[in-house]
Amino acid sequence: MKKEYRIEQVISHIRTSGFVFQGSEIYGGLANTWDFGPLGVELKNNVKALWWKSFISNNPHNVGIQSAILMNPKVWKASGHLDTFNDPLMDCKSCKSRHRADKLIEEFTNHEVNAGAMSFKEMEDYIEEHKIPCPVCGKHDFTNIRQFNLMFKTHQGVVEDSKNEIYLRPETAQGMFVNFRNVQRSMRLKVPFGIGQIGKSFRNEITPGNFIFRTREFEQMELEFFVKPGEDLKWYEYWKSFCLQWLVDLGIDRDNLRLRDHDQEELSHYSVATADIDYNYPWGFDELWGIADRTDFDLTQHQTHSKQSMEYLDPHTNEKYIPYVIEPALGVERLMLALMCEAYREEEVSENDTRIVMGFSPKVAPIKVAILPLSKKLSEEATTILHDFMDEFVCDYDEAGSIGKRYRRQDAVGTPFCMTVDFDSLEDKKVTLRYRDSMEQDRVTLEEAKTILRDSLKG
Amino acid sequence: MKKEYRIEQVISHIRTSGFVFQGSEIYGGLANTWDFGPLGVELKNNVKALWWKSFISNNPHNVGIQSAILMNPKVWKASGHLDTFNDPLMDCKSCKSRHRADKLIEEFTNHEVNAGAMSFKEMEDYIEEHKIPCPVCGKHDFTNIRQFNLMFKTHQGVVEDSKNEIYLRPETAQGMFVNFRNVQRSMRLKVPFGIGQIGKSFRNEITPGNFIFRTREFEQMELEFFVKPGEDLKWYEYWKSFCLQWLVDLGIDRDNLRLRDHDQEELSHYSVATADIDYNYPWGFDELWGIADRTDFDLTQHQTHSKQSMEYLDPHTNEKYIPYVIEPALGVERLMLALMCEAYREEEVSENDTRIVMGFSPKVAPIKVAILPLSKKLSEEATTILHDFMDEFVCDYDEAGSIGKRYRRQDAVGTPFCMTVDFDSLEDKKVTLRYRDSMEQDRVTLEEAKTILRDSLKG
Repeated sequence: MKKEYRIEQVISHIRTSGFVFQGSEIYGGLANTWDFGPLGVELKNNVKALWWKSFISNNPHNVGIQSAILMNPKVWKASGHLDTFNDPLMDCKSCKSRHRADKLIEEFTNHEVNAGAMSFKEMEDYIEEHKIPCPVCGKHDFTNIRQFNLMFKTHQGVVEDSKNEIYLRPETAQGMFVNFRNVQRSMRLKVPFGIGQIGKSFRNEITPGNFIFRTREFEQMELEFFVKPGEDLKWYEYWKSFCLQWLVDLGIDRDNLRLRDHDQEELSHYSVATADIDYNYPWGFDELWGIADRTDFDLTQHQTHSKQSMEYLDPHTNEKYIPYVIEPALGVERLMLALMCEAYREEEVSENDTRIVMGFSPKVAPIKVAILPLSKKLSEEATTILHDFMDEFVCDYDEAGSIGKRYRRQDAVGTPFCMTVDFDSLEDKKVTLRYRDSMEQDRVTLEEAKTILRDSLKG
Repeated sequence: MKKEYRIEQVISHIRTSGFVFQGSEIYGGLANTWDFGPLGVELKNNVKALWWKSFISNNPHNVGIQSAILMNPKVWKASGHLDTFNDPLMDCKSCKSRHRADKLIEEFTNHEVNAGAMSFKEMEDYIEEHKIPCPVCGKHDFTNIRQFNLMFKTHQGVVEDSKNEIYLRPETAQGMFVNFRNVQRSMRLKVPFGIGQIGKSFRNEITPGNFIFRTREFEQMELEFFVKPGEDLKWYEYWKSFCLQWLVDLGIDRDNLRLRDHDQEELSHYSVATADIDYNYPWGFDELWGIADRTDFDLTQHQTHSKQSMEYLDPHTNEKYIPYVIEPALGVERLMLALMCEAYREEEVSENDTRIVMGFSPKVAPIKVAILPLSKKLSEEATTILHDFMDEFVCDYDEAGSIGKRYRRQDAVGTPFCMTVDFDSLEDKKVTLRYRDSMEQDRVTLEEAKTILRDSLKG
């Protein structure tokens, strides 16, 4: 297991080096919104492309879709979100601060009590019985719990009345369920098959926080994998292992990952089995990925509410059934945070000389190679090389400052390779390839450099 | 110029073959929302990746970002959207239908009058003077124009009061402006440089329509290219040509594109020059891409409203100035619609035999190659080939029906290559490569097939 750093150290580095900026920063921000800078968006695009490749393109059972964020409100009635997607809201009567009752209990007990398994009444009783104090003012004087629906509401069309109320989707999953028959028919798919999607979702969290770990606007990568009832637990196990291995392949130490099966009382009403893959963030193990056996709950709900059949006819056995579904649901920003925490390290290179390294796996790294002319007189040669490489690899180009300083700048943003162009390059057509982690250097031809880069991005 | 088809023909094909479904279809839809099916999302991903490559990765001046959809409302005050992003709304008093006054005029005059250049008062007068009838009921009995703000409004946090009002962004551009200094500093960029973004925007259109041409939720690809004042018109010309050529490279016939400079009175108050690249949709030439010289309007507004300097210090001349900006702004769905209209054709292959072909350029095509075993007995061999190819190319696999029928299915979704595995393949390790457009066939090794595929995707 790697050395741990405080989350403040990691965030400070991320926020000053072009990964993440505060949203609307020049206007003092907007509560817990974040913008992804030039390096952050490349990291994000890499993460999304790698997910799409593993879960959609390279899986002959699966296809992708992109459904709209704005859906007919009947979808949220059927899915249960209108009635039950609520947080338990409590106000401190003394200082007027707002809290989630479940979080009050979990933080008070240092996460030893799992409030997710409690009813709202049980939470109220627990808080009363243990005289849990307000984390802001220290007094114990709360209102009762009120249910607060987490969906953002807006109005479509000219008139702001309840008839025109619509919601920003709180998950992408329902897009796959309502399109189940359209996709199955148009692509002539046979069970088992999966429909996946990457897209934004919105939850009006009472207490967002921990940097990009929990935000009101976030991006999800969700797969709904439809199977024959009875084969669901086998596929549930399959996807748990697959997801875990995928994270390891992205460069996350297995020791920093924990697979945690939910207790019976922790399960959602629609699920017979759910597991979290937790990551060891600087504040401890916390949620990264949820994998759930959602049974036929969603499709059955939509069949009932839409009066459209959601049955699948098995062409081999002529059986008709509503498939069960296994759902691995992952947040893009949460995975990015895990990857950035995992990558961050401070290294003592020699006495009085430390460097910050983002030790990303090359396929995740925002920039694959930096092209560095040793002198500004070599700009022309170096620019030619830049244009040759950038059609295949995301490149940076830097000619400012000493070469040592430029190497350190690239280390700090996780660039796995630097390519230095010097005066000998004009003669021997070779460059110095410098490796981020070992800091070793090789003299190679441009073709050799390309092969090394390509190999590092494989698998 | 290619043969033209009615828009209904094209849409009908797109909607039945896995490109686009009606949003929330099982619930009767939600006014003009659309979901992208398995083929539509691959097409969309290709379009976005090609834009990113040309406008960001392959341009050493440019970097990308991804800013939040939810921004501080002060952004929309500064940008002018809160005060002036209004449509001229008119109700028919007789049948209660809602209309945009500008569209009433333009449709009445068959687009010979450009209402975009008129004031609201001038529109009212024109409609009165010409006794323009209601397109729904035929009567001429309208209300006066009311201004309708196009931004979707929602509330962040628990309390629904005006203090918590926020908006869904109506354009991605402001994300680049408010991050101008953050991006410039953290990436040490020198003018001229560009910041680009791909992301969703939302406009509460009074009259959305024409399939995916105008929707309330849509995705934009915008570049803000910052230049020294005085050099703006040069760069404006540069980006106009660049964008036009890029469309031609995607496979759009130059004759189906028209570059239209805006008249002086048509220009927005912040722009000194704007041009539209129009595409020849089945209903005639209409907007595809807007390229505008926005001057220093946006940065100056944000400097005034945020009290943060937006000045750039030129390191060579030590001059300080607020850069001008050139903005090429393109809608992803609009480009997809143009590409799909351009690609669609019906061909008479022989007497009584026609085929539908989506003649996409290979780099745009959702599926690059379909692997077709001639007999189900060849499944194992064909599946091995599928796994070999799908790591590099988006593949389809089809073993149902006659080989001719399977070719036609691939033609209809635009797959440029089919690879047929037959019993000889077991011996000679070759496959039959069939070309979509010529319908010719070649017997090739798998390595030769890969080279042909790779070459088709270059450039």
